[in-house]
Amino acid sequence: MNPAQQLESEQSSFISGVSRRLESFLSDQRVIMDTVSPDVAPLLGSISSLVTGGKRLRALMCYWGWRGVGGNADDSGILTAGCALELFQAAALIHDDIIDRSDTRRGGPSVHKRFSQLHQANGWALDNERFGHAAAILTGDLCLSFSEESFTEIGPPAASGTEARRIFNLMRAEVMAGQYLDILEEVAGPVRDRMGSVERAKAIIRYKSAKYSMEHPLALGGALAGASTDLLRLYSAFSLPLGEAFQMRDDVLGVFGDPETTGKPAGDDLREGKRTVLVGFAINLAPAEEAAYVDRMLGRQNLSSEEVDRIRHIIVECGALDATESLIAELSDTAFSALDRLPLDELPLAALRRLAEAAVSRAA
Amino acid sequence: MNPAQQLESEQSSFISGVSRRLESFLSDQRVIMDTVSPDVAPLLGSISSLVTGGKRLRALMCYWGWRGVGGNADDSGILTAGCALELFQAAALIHDDIIDRSDTRRGGPSVHKRFSQLHQANGWALDNERFGHAAAILTGDLCLSFSEESFTEIGPPAASGTEARRIFNLMRAEVMAGQYLDILEEVAGPVRDRMGSVERAKAIIRYKSAKYSMEHPLALGGALAGASTDLLRLYSAFSLPLGEAFQMRDDVLGVFGDPETTGKPAGDDLREGKRTVLVGFAINLAPAEEAAYVDRMLGRQNLSSEEVDRIRHIIVECGALDATESLIAELSDTAFSALDRLPLDELPLAALRRLAEAAVSRAA
Repeated sequence: MNPAQQLESEQSSFISGVSRRLESFLSDQRVIMDTVSPDVAPLLGSISSLVTGGKRLRALMCYWGWRGVGGNADDSGILTAGCALELFQAAALIHDDIIDRSDTRRGGPSVHKRFSQLHQANGWALDNERFGHAAAILTGDLCLSFSEESFTEIGPPAASGTEARRIFNLMRAEVMAGQYLDILEEVAGPVRDRMGSVERAKAIIRYKSAKYSMEHPLALGGALAGASTDLLRLYSAFSLPLGEAFQMRDDVLGVFGDPETTGKPAGDDLREGKRTVLVGFAINLAPAEEAAYVDRMLGRQNLSSEEVDRIRHIIVECGALDATESLIAELSDTAFSALDRLPLDELPLAALRRLAEAAVSRAA
Repeated sequence: MNPAQQLESEQSSFISGVSRRLESFLSDQRVIMDTVSPDVAPLLGSISSLVTGGKRLRALMCYWGWRGVGGNADDSGILTAGCALELFQAAALIHDDIIDRSDTRRGGPSVHKRFSQLHQANGWALDNERFGHAAAILTGDLCLSFSEESFTEIGPPAASGTEARRIFNLMRAEVMAGQYLDILEEVAGPVRDRMGSVERAKAIIRYKSAKYSMEHPLALGGALAGASTDLLRLYSAFSLPLGEAFQMRDDVLGVFGDPETTGKPAGDDLREGKRTVLVGFAINLAPAEEAAYVDRMLGRQNLSSEEVDRIRHIIVECGALDATESLIAELSDTAFSALDRLPLDELPLAALRRLAEAAVSRAA
């Protein structure tokens, strides 16, 4: 095998290992749930279908963080850590979709929508949407508990007092705080200091996304394999700017992405009222009247495609898109320079480079 | 000190120990949250105020389960376990209040209401209710993570593979499943087999309440102190029927309780559409037309006080209240007989008796 083939083979072996671990974890849970009532099956069904797909981005960051410190490729603990991260991500998505009122997820109905459809299909009483939201809140809670249950199964390397546990705890708290900052900015942004909007948007992506999706998973893998504080610092110098660039790329796609490729309706982020770095630049750079228009229209769920087009036009014309693309390029450069300084073997280094390239150049 | 004084003194020393532990846990978390952003403070503020009050019922069950097996009164681990249970309960309440649309909790605004008020007070944009719900979902998630973080701090006695961890995991999964059965029955009950309504209501209280509030906390304390499987079985024979009686008492109060004492508007459970054992009996025992009336009116949020009175009247006249009270008495008898068979020292036995008496005879 050449190095590229070896990387591919090792990575797909890890990914299928995580999938099997998830299946076996959830099938153990199904036994418990069946003793409660067969009626509970849709909760596990929703979790199962949510963890079946996905790019396993966080699990892979964790894996290569682990391999970079010499962790064994077929270690059971790292599979369990990957499983815990995937379950956490599923829990976050379930609650996110309620918060954002997203009815689709990965091309299918989101969890609250699934329960609302179950309600309708069975001709149940009272309000189907309300039932959908309530059931999805509980499913997300269950999934969050599963994530932690799985993480604890790693055993001593993730026990109380370890660096891995500290990172896992911090990851959860910070992402929830970051999500709160996100919804806060949607409502408070319009009445706060406009000049601070880019900085506030940066803080949001740092906590909601960059730390959660990149920095903490990579550090977690490293910590599980006993990485030194110095190495964790180098990991962070690479993964934090990478995660910021990754989220800004996502934000650009949320406004300009092709719905065919992203799987989300065009302009969805504008209807949700997301106040991203891109939007922050627009509000600062556009002429006063146009900035006020963007400010006013954001978060209107009934934005027409003409209105979406006008906002896009403003974002392009005022230079906000360029400013964001420059920032993405700058953060990418910082990340790739830090990557070059990582004292790792060729294989994990190549793997991290590939993940990084996919993160900042993707179209969906 | 006489035995009653000793019990009182030990119990209040444990309760204040749990309060201090909660304060110190949350103040450590505040340091982390402050590094994210001062804007995040209301999440911790909500959690703090929610864990400040309360009867500490679950923590106390855990404590006496621990003491019954000879656990040390001033052990740090049992305080941490109590803290974890209180945080879990707070998380459950936050999400419950969203699901039930309860705007009040312990005489003050519920968490989603607090955030919605924060939105209004600051003149923020978009919808204040939607913001309140979203912020409360995130606050509950954070609190759920805190609960687990705290539980893990117990260390080796609660590590992966221990009986205590197994119980904690089971407790979380079962209560979420039970809550789902509860909201399912609200919508599916009207179209399901009427004759099964009492049995379904019993399953709901078993998982949603009896196991969660009584059986698992008591077993958890026992397991942390190394209780034998036999003793855990005896604990369960006492705590499970006690928990069922406790919840049925709660259900009766939810319909007939004095709003002054319960802190909830009269008939609130009827407006929420809770299909309790009491309601199940009414639907089975009342004349067809009246049963259909109850079925139809349940869950209507705008029930007038006359309608509430009519439902109450039906429940009393058809014998549903008597049937429920008999069941409560029967379950209490079973619980107290099992209590008499517990091979415990005098102090924990007296403490459990006092908790049990409070549980089934309370007025609020």
